[in-house]
Amino acid sequence: MGKVYLVGAGPGAPDLLTLRAARLLEAADIVLHDALVHPDTLALAKKARLIDVGKRYGKVSTEQRFIHRALLFAARKYEVVVRLKGGDPMLFGRAQEELDALAAAGIETEVVPGVTAALAAAAQLRVSLTRRGLARTVAFLTPRVGSGETASEWLPAALGADSVALYMAAGAASGIAAALIEGGKPAATPVALVESATLGCERRLFTTLAALRAEAPPAAAGPVVMLVGEVLRDCESVALPAFAEMADSIRSA
Amino acid sequence: MGKVYLVGAGPGAPDLLTLRAARLLEAADIVLHDALVHPDTLALAKKARLIDVGKRYGKVSTEQRFIHRALLFAARKYEVVVRLKGGDPMLFGRAQEELDALAAAGIETEVVPGVTAALAAAAQLRVSLTRRGLARTVAFLTPRVGSGETASEWLPAALGADSVALYMAAGAASGIAAALIEGGKPAATPVALVESATLGCERRLFTTLAALRAEAPPAAAGPVVMLVGEVLRDCESVALPAFAEMADSIRSA
Repeated sequence: MGKVYLVGAGPGAPDLLTLRAARLLEAADIVLHDALVHPDTLALAKKARLIDVGKRYGKVSTEQRFIHRALLFAARKYEVVVRLKGGDPMLFGRAQEELDALAAAGIETEVVPGVTAALAAAAQLRVSLTRRGLARTVAFLTPRVGSGETASEWLPAALGADSVALYMAAGAASGIAAALIEGGKPAATPVALVESATLGCERRLFTTLAALRAEAPPAAAGPVVMLVGEVLRDCESVALPAFAEMADSIRSA
Repeated sequence: MGKVYLVGAGPGAPDLLTLRAARLLEAADIVLHDALVHPDTLALAKKARLIDVGKRYGKVSTEQRFIHRALLFAARKYEVVVRLKGGDPMLFGRAQEELDALAAAGIETEVVPGVTAALAAAAQLRVSLTRRGLARTVAFLTPRVGSGETASEWLPAALGADSVALYMAAGAASGIAAALIEGGKPAATPVALVESATLGCERRLFTTLAALRAEAPPAAAGPVVMLVGEVLRDCESVALPAFAEMADSIRSA
């Protein structure tokens, strides 16, 4: 029986992988990876069979049950099995379901943490999510709703925190902004949307809750992290060129 | 004028550094680092002058103003300046003050994200902080209070989130547990304290808010992450040996 490593691939750029993850990829016999892992990261797995079990919002997705079956099959056939997930496995990675399925089958597991997308986005913007006297709490959440779920499941966390990082939120950004304002966040609260953070194709949009409520952001081609909070106010004075560019492209559209 | 890289050193284990951080350390002329960075991580900075500007709770600390002066001095004298911070720079790293001081002096900066301690602790416990149907929001916060600050500054975020990761909280764990229960978190909510996550000397304590309120945890030698939430309930059945060991050592103490 092999061992399964749930490994965080980091936010996007191949060199934001950890040294441990890189070594495990080199040693892997088989890698079951998410859809959005960078080709250069996968190339580290020189001797491994690569299987894309990726799920992507709005695209054809692989059923979680299939992933479980594939992991069990791999662990029975190979010694070093890497399950490579975007970002960090323990935050919005559905890792628990996979860990539980493996544990139920008596298969050994280990988790290798990674850099999560929101912290990478903050690094790219050079904006700390915490700041003395301004922000001592940060909420990480995903507002994607399944059947029967409502904003009441994520809104209290967002309203209670000084800074908020929302994953998989761009498609519903206007509704989210409206819910936050209705819940009591000031309409002028700054918002940054960072698409494909740390990749060459990274795009940034700097706005406010009020503006976002009034107009949906342009469609994104890659994953977007939405950051909300007063800590982002200085982005305006920093005047990152990409923000300006993006704003121009919106105005001219 | 040199360039200053604010680099996350990750949670502790040297191989949880990113590839980018490792390359920057190798290229660095000078490294100004926190107190708790692993010696093997510092050893990557082969040609650099190493300066410990670390701050540690309860120990002699370096004034933030001294760190700013040291960064400005380094940027004027050296080409590649690395400011190495434990975990991720943008979460409880006081990075903004340093970035602002450098920006005011016209010095170029770049931030390299890292693996933050709470996600490393979750990986070590093999417990995802989010779980379908159980936890879709996570609050990251530090309850350390300065002059005039009260629990009202961090409590709403903790109460609004399904899972909570508290940094620099172990010393005040009983009071924090009391505040969370008083605020409405069920007294039976599971808690995990992870000390020196990912290092060889890692220790874990599994308890509940009620038990923690009644009795303070044993004193810690290294940094502790406190995780709170229903996602941690399964830790009991997983019966990680280190938990049992620790509980034994508490009982026999």
